[in-house]
Amino acid sequence: MYQSMDFKGYDLSNESEEIVPIGSLNHLSTKYESLDYEVIENELYREEEQKKGYRYVVQKDFSRWMTFFWIGVTTAFIGIIIFISIEIGTTFKFNMIKKYFDGCTEADCVYKPYLVALLLNLIPSLVGSCLIVYIEPMAKGSGIPAVKCFLNGIKVPRLIRLKTLVVKVIGVTCVALGGMWGGKEGPMIHAGSIVAAGVSQGKSITFNKDLGALNFFREDHEKRDFVSGGAAAGIAAAFGAPVGGLLFSLEEGASFWNQALTWRTFFGSMVSMFTLHSVLSAYHGHPGDLTYKGLLNFGEFDDLSYHILDIPVFVLMGIVGGLTGALFCHLNLKLFIFRKRYVNKDWKKILEVLIVCATTVTISFLLILFTSDCKKLGLDPTDHPIQFGCNDGEFNAMASLWFQLLEGTVRSLFHDTPDVFNTTTVVYFCICAYFITLWTYGVHFSGGVLIPGLCTGAAWGRLVGRANIGIYSLIGAASQLGGITRMTISLTIILVEATGSITFGLPLMICLMTAKWVGDFFSESIYDTQIELSGMPLLAWDPPPLSSNIYANNLMTHPVITFKTKETVGNIVKILKTYSHNGFPVIEYVQNYELDEGKTKCYLRGLILRSQLIVLLENKVFDGPLTNYWDSVTMETFREDYPRYSSIDDIELLQNDLKLTIDLSRFMNPSPYIVQHTMSLPRVFKLFRAMGLRHIVVVNDSNEVAGIVTRKDLARYKVIRHMGKICVTELQFSSKMD
Amino acid sequence: MYQSMDFKGYDLSNESEEIVPIGSLNHLSTKYESLDYEVIENELYREEEQKKGYRYVVQKDFSRWMTFFWIGVTTAFIGIIIFISIEIGTTFKFNMIKKYFDGCTEADCVYKPYLVALLLNLIPSLVGSCLIVYIEPMAKGSGIPAVKCFLNGIKVPRLIRLKTLVVKVIGVTCVALGGMWGGKEGPMIHAGSIVAAGVSQGKSITFNKDLGALNFFREDHEKRDFVSGGAAAGIAAAFGAPVGGLLFSLEEGASFWNQALTWRTFFGSMVSMFTLHSVLSAYHGHPGDLTYKGLLNFGEFDDLSYHILDIPVFVLMGIVGGLTGALFCHLNLKLFIFRKRYVNKDWKKILEVLIVCATTVTISFLLILFTSDCKKLGLDPTDHPIQFGCNDGEFNAMASLWFQLLEGTVRSLFHDTPDVFNTTTVVYFCICAYFITLWTYGVHFSGGVLIPGLCTGAAWGRLVGRANIGIYSLIGAASQLGGITRMTISLTIILVEATGSITFGLPLMICLMTAKWVGDFFSESIYDTQIELSGMPLLAWDPPPLSSNIYANNLMTHPVITFKTKETVGNIVKILKTYSHNGFPVIEYVQNYELDEGKTKCYLRGLILRSQLIVLLENKVFDGPLTNYWDSVTMETFREDYPRYSSIDDIELLQNDLKLTIDLSRFMNPSPYIVQHTMSLPRVFKLFRAMGLRHIVVVNDSNEVAGIVTRKDLARYKVIRHMGKICVTELQFSSKMD
Repeated sequence: MYQSMDFKGYDLSNESEEIVPIGSLNHLSTKYESLDYEVIENELYREEEQKKGYRYVVQKDFSRWMTFFWIGVTTAFIGIIIFISIEIGTTFKFNMIKKYFDGCTEADCVYKPYLVALLLNLIPSLVGSCLIVYIEPMAKGSGIPAVKCFLNGIKVPRLIRLKTLVVKVIGVTCVALGGMWGGKEGPMIHAGSIVAAGVSQGKSITFNKDLGALNFFREDHEKRDFVSGGAAAGIAAAFGAPVGGLLFSLEEGASFWNQALTWRTFFGSMVSMFTLHSVLSAYHGHPGDLTYKGLLNFGEFDDLSYHILDIPVFVLMGIVGGLTGALFCHLNLKLFIFRKRYVNKDWKKILEVLIVCATTVTISFLLILFTSDCKKLGLDPTDHPIQFGCNDGEFNAMASLWFQLLEGTVRSLFHDTPDVFNTTTVVYFCICAYFITLWTYGVHFSGGVLIPGLCTGAAWGRLVGRANIGIYSLIGAASQLGGITRMTISLTIILVEATGSITFGLPLMICLMTAKWVGDFFSESIYDTQIELSGMPLLAWDPPPLSSNIYANNLMTHPVITFKTKETVGNIVKILKTYSHNGFPVIEYVQNYELDEGKTKCYLRGLILRSQLIVLLENKVFDGPLTNYWDSVTMETFREDYPRYSSIDDIELLQNDLKLTIDLSRFMNPSPYIVQHTMSLPRVFKLFRAMGLRHIVVVNDSNEVAGIVTRKDLARYKVIRHMGKICVTELQFSSKMD
Repeated sequence: MYQSMDFKGYDLSNESEEIVPIGSLNHLSTKYESLDYEVIENELYREEEQKKGYRYVVQKDFSRWMTFFWIGVTTAFIGIIIFISIEIGTTFKFNMIKKYFDGCTEADCVYKPYLVALLLNLIPSLVGSCLIVYIEPMAKGSGIPAVKCFLNGIKVPRLIRLKTLVVKVIGVTCVALGGMWGGKEGPMIHAGSIVAAGVSQGKSITFNKDLGALNFFREDHEKRDFVSGGAAAGIAAAFGAPVGGLLFSLEEGASFWNQALTWRTFFGSMVSMFTLHSVLSAYHGHPGDLTYKGLLNFGEFDDLSYHILDIPVFVLMGIVGGLTGALFCHLNLKLFIFRKRYVNKDWKKILEVLIVCATTVTISFLLILFTSDCKKLGLDPTDHPIQFGCNDGEFNAMASLWFQLLEGTVRSLFHDTPDVFNTTTVVYFCICAYFITLWTYGVHFSGGVLIPGLCTGAAWGRLVGRANIGIYSLIGAASQLGGITRMTISLTIILVEATGSITFGLPLMICLMTAKWVGDFFSESIYDTQIELSGMPLLAWDPPPLSSNIYANNLMTHPVITFKTKETVGNIVKILKTYSHNGFPVIEYVQNYELDEGKTKCYLRGLILRSQLIVLLENKVFDGPLTNYWDSVTMETFREDYPRYSSIDDIELLQNDLKLTIDLSRFMNPSPYIVQHTMSLPRVFKLFRAMGLRHIVVVNDSNEVAGIVTRKDLARYKVIRHMGKICVTELQFSSKMD
């Protein structure tokens, strides 16, 4: 029988499913779908294009620029809301703590400020974690791994919804108010991405609202471009680093480099930084002054000059950062497995957040109690000096490290002169910072690891060189963060922009590169570990090495379920209900004219997506005696339902409908990218990656459909680099989704 | 008969050749070939890969890093040689001129310094132009358009030879010594590219020397990556702008974004800047100080703070830059046509250079003679103050603009306080600068338009705002250069890095964007005009709009010349001699087993390149009774001859050889990227562009070869945007090469 009749699935999810042990890095979830970067140039598309003409091209282009403008502005305003709420909230908090501290200079009354601090920290932490656990778990953490996957081309459910944004914004404010070790910078990247998706689609699923505008942007292709711009705008707002944002979105998102997109992304990032700076400089009393230095994230460095002999020291610091970073990733993985096993109920998750929060407060009080590092007032520009345990006219240096926002602590470590902190103060602080950051990363709250990582590194960096604190603490911060996240180009540029010094780019690059190489020797980055744990089929930059002896016919899943160009409704419904596949080759049976016996060949005619079929069924686009659908179905019909289509089970059809046929040739993609069954893995991989595909049809020598290659078939081959050894393994499939 | 027997060419160069009028923008030269970004994964490749294993992968990767390191260092040293020779030479020259000027304060003796200046300028100009005209014309101009084409994937003959480099280095020094209006920055990009090609290939064709090292980098794919890194290193050395260099190479060169390549490019750029800075700071007496400010190309700006209300002024300046830039491109095109028609002999070309040089000197003297702008000594930090026409203790401000290096003039315009130059001085200077730059661009010398463009713009920028000269002259410079070159992201970042101020990125971006939009409304950029005049088949970023109704079978050239998997030597030689094609599909005739009459189908089995066939013929890899070539032919055999293969006419074969066969299946690319004949132009274009292909095989429904699409088939469809209108035209083919 023909292939469309033999109903064997190419989806391996049911066959090979095994129970994946908790914390396994070697599985691949079959539940994640790819985004589709391809433009389906079917008849409808061509008709629309020809009808609307150049005017439409220009209009679309102009709308793109305007959309990027609004993405920049909106992202900046989200940043402004977060910054100002945190500023107001923490000022209140630290003033309260200071008030209770000021009434107490000895150890016997320290319980009063302690209880106040505990209460003021636990309440926002509770609110923040409840939001994440009960309302929207997708808003957990920084969101960077998930955004990275989205930009890589994976459909991550609920990632870019308005609800996620609202929870994230409130959540990240709560984290900062709760004094927990999480940064607002990572979440800003996620927030920017959601803003971009929202602004560009003119539609909210959370509110079930459709503005009807910009509907020509309703395809994965356009959305992914906007989201990469949004992520860049988020970084521009968070760090004041538009070029860094651009490079981040390229580093994580770009497959095919597009000049126009890059330029628009840069524009959006600039607008975002510009908006944030103008509003915040006005808020701080410098209206109109766009170069107000108070906004530089890491403060202004007076002197970042270095000597050629400093370079070896920078390399050594990079090694330290790489080692401690790899340890961080390893321990965090263990912690993750522990959490999966024991912190598996909602109330336990919230409890963990509260415990972490309380522990952080307790540690800070214990450190203040048991170290006495008193310095003259005015030495450190902290806003809330605490006198505890010190004489009049002095302040407690350890307390000044703990009782300010993390960004403030980083600035203090970068800029305060060597005599502000005793060495023991910094040592204790550094050790605690490392472990608190380690424990905190992964609990159910909305905070990132960027600022805590910088803070830890800045602390030990200060210890290395007392000659030029600024340089060494900056290099320490970069090394530590580089060791944890393994970000390279983008992090270099972000730090260069955030410090405002271009000449310091080379040392930063050297230490980040060293940290990455050393770290990669032992473990994956913290983000990649998270992604692997979740089983998301992330495609690497390059195909696995030495894989040119794996061919498309080893890769592909087959036999393939296909449709004929004219297919009966009943058949379509049956297949859609039986299989969970999302793309089906459309074939035609051609009788070899030179034959009498009727031996036929099935030639590929195109590819049709499940979503398209659903729309066709919903709109009853059937070839019936009474139906004339040629005018009623346009591109708009398909855009209306994007991106969430009905399930096949929800579509009600009359018994009579099932006998009718649909002519798929008008709607299918008539020329999908095809490869021959002899093509090697690296070549299939490159094609898939560069073109942002979702399905590649594999054909045999006579152009008959032999199989289909999807993302999971390629992501399955994983390169494992460990302790200097490289090997390629095949991952297991699982159907869990995290 | 079978297709391989019917000898009709798909090369249109002979059929449709027409005489292209001088200065026509609407032709496409069929003489330029594509680079081949594809890796040919044939049997030899697989064998080598499996044999050498992971060690080889790691070794290759390490060599890549080392190569980028050496590219950076070497490029920097080329820069250092140029900088120091120019510094010494011009110091001598300006001292001489000053000496003769100092003996003369009145108009009657001005002929003495004039003659000295004329002589000192004419001699180097003569040397420089003779080198270009007689030794290596490829070293003409900045080289940016040619490098851009190379990175786009066009094989530009002699572009990256050592001879070109030597001529370029001497040439650019001569230009600067000759006082001509050409920058050394553009040539540095070209120099970096050549260095990269040379270092990575370990082989010089000019010297006929083969080091035998790094021969695994001998493929277009690797070479192009290195060259893009070299171009970036060139910019990093010329402007101190490593990120700008990175973005330039991405903007011009990247097709498929590759993270590892980007990171290495950035590394190479950093190394280049670092080496240049350490050597030059040591040369200037600050050894080891890597942040020595004297190396900032445009000097250090004290105050680049701006107000939100300045933005509209920046936009207006962008418009002025765009308009004057478009006029510049238009006039330069007319000048080009004039030159093609009348300056067509070698001696005329040299004469033109001398006339331009003499005119420049004369104009400067006339301006000094007829304006009297005397200022107190010490106001301007010029090294060679000339007293001419002024009282004691004063210097001639107009003379100080002319008698220093162009970079120095730009710095003066950026930084000198408003009272250094009278308004009339700047107005006269600006007008002359514009027309001298216009005339100079395109004469036979090695100089770029970057610095002259900045100089002109800085002059009129100074006139706009006298409140903050630094800002307005910088914006003017950016607008003018943006209007001429239409560079966007990379120019923004280059200027940001060269000025050392990140906060000023937004204004720069705004004015560059405005200048680009305004300029594009009227004309193409100066580089694109040059490229179009030469007929090089540059592929744009995006396929032409509204072209989805053009299909692969309209695009492709056919019928195709094919080979069988086992082909006779005689047939191969005959075809190679008859046709100039570079790629041939390899097919197999398969008899349909169900047929008795022997009706056959020809299925695609692979693609073989002319260069591969030449190597096979040269090494006599024939299937004879006595031949056992399986061990003797490896990947190395093919690498040895790269990149210049013999002509088919130079290969001597015995009459007996012609009857033997070659089994092509072991050497061909067994799975070339194929498209169906129904695929639309945009999709074919995207595939070609993203994968960096040279040939795409078009197949019909039953996988029989229907045609071949090459670069010129795609580049033929050109979008013309003029005065707000857009249309797509088909270019004529020509066989001229420029």
